[in-house]
Amino acid sequence: MPSSAPSVKKNAVAGYGAIITECRPTMKDREDTVETIMASTHATLIHPYNNSQIIAGQGTLMLELLAQARSSGRPLDTIIVPVGGGGLLAGCSIAARGVDPSIRVFAAEPLAVDDAARAFASNTLMQNPAGATSVADGLTANLGALNFPIIMDNVDSIFTVTETQIVDAMRLVWERMKIVIEPSAATGVAVALFNEEFRRLEPAPRNIGIVLSGGNVDLIRALELFK
Amino acid sequence: MPSSAPSVKKNAVAGYGAIITECRPTMKDREDTVETIMASTHATLIHPYNNSQIIAGQGTLMLELLAQARSSGRPLDTIIVPVGGGGLLAGCSIAARGVDPSIRVFAAEPLAVDDAARAFASNTLMQNPAGATSVADGLTANLGALNFPIIMDNVDSIFTVTETQIVDAMRLVWERMKIVIEPSAATGVAVALFNEEFRRLEPAPRNIGIVLSGGNVDLIRALELFK
Repeated sequence: MPSSAPSVKKNAVAGYGAIITECRPTMKDREDTVETIMASTHATLIHPYNNSQIIAGQGTLMLELLAQARSSGRPLDTIIVPVGGGGLLAGCSIAARGVDPSIRVFAAEPLAVDDAARAFASNTLMQNPAGATSVADGLTANLGALNFPIIMDNVDSIFTVTETQIVDAMRLVWERMKIVIEPSAATGVAVALFNEEFRRLEPAPRNIGIVLSGGNVDLIRALELFK
Repeated sequence: MPSSAPSVKKNAVAGYGAIITECRPTMKDREDTVETIMASTHATLIHPYNNSQIIAGQGTLMLELLAQARSSGRPLDTIIVPVGGGGLLAGCSIAARGVDPSIRVFAAEPLAVDDAARAFASNTLMQNPAGATSVADGLTANLGALNFPIIMDNVDSIFTVTETQIVDAMRLVWERMKIVIEPSAATGVAVALFNEEFRRLEPAPRNIGIVLSGGNVDLIRALELFK
């Protein structure tokens, strides 16, 4: 795990019985550390987003969400899913299109690390500038090569939100929905509340499903954001 | 509303369309202010806990909780409900006993305002000392006269927890269950985790239902508790 990971996330992982090796939070040091561990332990790498089984697994949440909304009598016409490396978005978009081709599928991305929005607009994989970061620390990865064509095929648009919009949306979810989410999870809510392009969509979305992923947040750090 | 109420609670109440009159946070000023408003508006008082309809209404949550646990295949053998004025506890205890007389019904109370535990032990209504307070600000009221005999009849025991235990339990619920609860809601969790009498019960509780009421917490104030 990168040394910058919130302690609440490290504690949770350790609590599930993992052996944690820390590395510096650069992509190079992360990849080098994984190589070293694999060489010494003969472990198999499961990439966190650029992996077909991860994509398929993440897609199952969308099947559950759509089924629950349908059984509540308010079937979804629109979904919003956060995008970083793109595994969650790829899986959710395949699942949503498979269940109902008329569903509008949108992604939410921090403007500060908007490689996916730029890739989508130009039909070419893009990189975030070295050192680019966001309060939504779970979404700073560049879009994975495996996810890119899936997203081009199944996603209608990628909307971006500012850092302030992310924190405002996160605060609303904490205060009124009583759910502890991390900033990455608030990006979809921020799109629904604040993104002007989204809010001008025709026809206007009626029943919107937003994926809140995840809730690994250091409470002290989060509450500092609210000050 | 008392001027000491968290701003998040005031904002939520205002957001539902209420006209808010503030008073000082003493019981006398609260009661005097209510009398003044009733005289000038001919409004009807609905007491927040010493009222049979409030008791009945709060009891419906226990019906839902028991039904959900049963349908999930893990019927509850034990419930823990926070106690302040006692309306929630009275309603929940009647409901639980009515559904299943074998359920063990426990209350959770902050040690710092333990009038209900003392009343239960002595079979006599008690008062908290003037100025007694707790981080669980929703539980500082004295037990209501209407609730007292119901609780004597239907509750097995009232367990107390310290201020530190309440904050530790609250933090666990925020971090691992991802639910924003106020300190009052954490008292039941604190009993289950930390109260020695509860933890030595024979036979040991298996499926425990804990009422988390409520979630009106000022985020900045909560942060100060966690530091």
